[in-house]
Amino acid sequence: MAVPDPGLPTRVRIHEVGARDGLQNEKTTVPTEVKAEFVRRLAAAGLGTIEATSFVHPKWVPQLADAEQLFPLVAELPVELPVLVPNERGLERALALGARRVAVFASATESFAKANLNRTVDEALAMFEPVVARARAEGGHVRGYLSMCFGDPWEGAVPVDQVVRVCKALMDMGCDELSLGDTIGVATPGHVRELLVSLGAQGIPAEVLGVHFHDTYGQALANTLAALRQGVTTVDASAGGLGGCPYAKSATGNLATEDLVWMLHGLGIDTGVDLGRLVATSVWMADRLGRPSPSRTVRALSHQEQ
Amino acid sequence: MAVPDPGLPTRVRIHEVGARDGLQNEKTTVPTEVKAEFVRRLAAAGLGTIEATSFVHPKWVPQLADAEQLFPLVAELPVELPVLVPNERGLERALALGARRVAVFASATESFAKANLNRTVDEALAMFEPVVARARAEGGHVRGYLSMCFGDPWEGAVPVDQVVRVCKALMDMGCDELSLGDTIGVATPGHVRELLVSLGAQGIPAEVLGVHFHDTYGQALANTLAALRQGVTTVDASAGGLGGCPYAKSATGNLATEDLVWMLHGLGIDTGVDLGRLVATSVWMADRLGRPSPSRTVRALSHQEQ
Repeated sequence: MAVPDPGLPTRVRIHEVGARDGLQNEKTTVPTEVKAEFVRRLAAAGLGTIEATSFVHPKWVPQLADAEQLFPLVAELPVELPVLVPNERGLERALALGARRVAVFASATESFAKANLNRTVDEALAMFEPVVARARAEGGHVRGYLSMCFGDPWEGAVPVDQVVRVCKALMDMGCDELSLGDTIGVATPGHVRELLVSLGAQGIPAEVLGVHFHDTYGQALANTLAALRQGVTTVDASAGGLGGCPYAKSATGNLATEDLVWMLHGLGIDTGVDLGRLVATSVWMADRLGRPSPSRTVRALSHQEQ
Repeated sequence: MAVPDPGLPTRVRIHEVGARDGLQNEKTTVPTEVKAEFVRRLAAAGLGTIEATSFVHPKWVPQLADAEQLFPLVAELPVELPVLVPNERGLERALALGARRVAVFASATESFAKANLNRTVDEALAMFEPVVARARAEGGHVRGYLSMCFGDPWEGAVPVDQVVRVCKALMDMGCDELSLGDTIGVATPGHVRELLVSLGAQGIPAEVLGVHFHDTYGQALANTLAALRQGVTTVDASAGGLGGCPYAKSATGNLATEDLVWMLHGLGIDTGVDLGRLVATSVWMADRLGRPSPSRTVRALSHQEQ
């Protein structure tokens, strides 16, 4: 039924975060081989960018302490496999394994920078600067995550100018792309539009921007639609809706890749994803984790009960 | 943070369906006084149009068998209180109680007309004709619900022309407004736009149209946003996300009024609703029903766990 809408892109790149952002908060330890199989199945379902793991200190994210063991198991897959690196030490671990697509994780607000990184926003940026420089010197590609771009649990609504300033700093230090995170899921489409328009006016075009929405208030797809209308073509999502924000205890944090794909395909937008295989992958992973997927599309297509 | 978007309306009328569409599929009998209190609390939360009940035969919808007892308990509230009437007999029962805002329930597809009404689409329309005429002769206002406007569980995607034909028939017989239902929740924003553009081209403007989306695939808010861009200013929603479609067994059928209000207020669109009071009402109702609300906004704001 899809009639192309000239205001929307014809293709969207999904940046799949389920294996990293989705699993990192899981209490039950997921075996390395299960993680590798998850990444393989995601790749087989047509996802071309799969964030595989994080080279963070195991003390902070025990679930991803097996990054060194996992990465080689999936490194040969014919997909992009970015990994999170929190600092220079993490980057060196990733580079040693051959990883060349890395991501750093900045905050738009002082409160979250303090809570998550124990630094001011500018101290965190200073910490990332040599990481970005070194990654690029190795021919790498760097994504800059920016969390709390819309609201912050301590500070409330986040001024657009504040977000633009940190985005510019990340681009100036050499990031290839940014991911604008609505970490607590409070954004609405007008706020998304406003931020993207402001970034464009400051020389940061939609082409280098990804959006990372959470469904805490059910807004993720409406926000995605608003971002697509501003020219964004990279959307972060988590298979099966895995993961969430520790400040909003519902399991429905990340936008589910399946819900996103349902919308995009309905709009006639190409993603390269085979939705049936992706749903089967999320059902398989839900079985490994022992609880149903929070994705509405997964539930509807797999006839899972809530 | 809301910067007005010239492509969106400044005010939206929410047609609250929780007390009728939300409760009708509940297995546990809800006492009449609880239903009345629910309607009162919805009104106190600022909802101006609250569909109160259905004058359908008790055999078909036992939960709403108390329509005669309920309606007088809420009739004096200073809000619009439409009621569903399936046929002339139901209409006479409603009229006798002083109800003047009524709704009929048509289908865009033969399969659902057969399943739900045991009639063809045209036989159902013929059944509604004297109902609409009599209601209008009594000075009433008639809403025509049209279900399966996008997809049908038996027929798949529903051709736009087929939906337009039934919409025209409902308007020609005298309906004051229509509600376009995505009964199984499969619609995506491009399909919504296409249908609304086609209806406009056939002389049915957005001003007489409401949209009724289900969140089965998580698409309801994105679809609402697409409808608002086409000029629609009436949106159906169910407090707390009560209710669902019997063909998709998830409890997350109806768009939750709270999720809608979060988006609209974030867009700077007036609804007249006090979100805090509405969330409190849905939490209260969830306690009566013995299970948490499926609304993400209710969960986030009330710190309910899944």
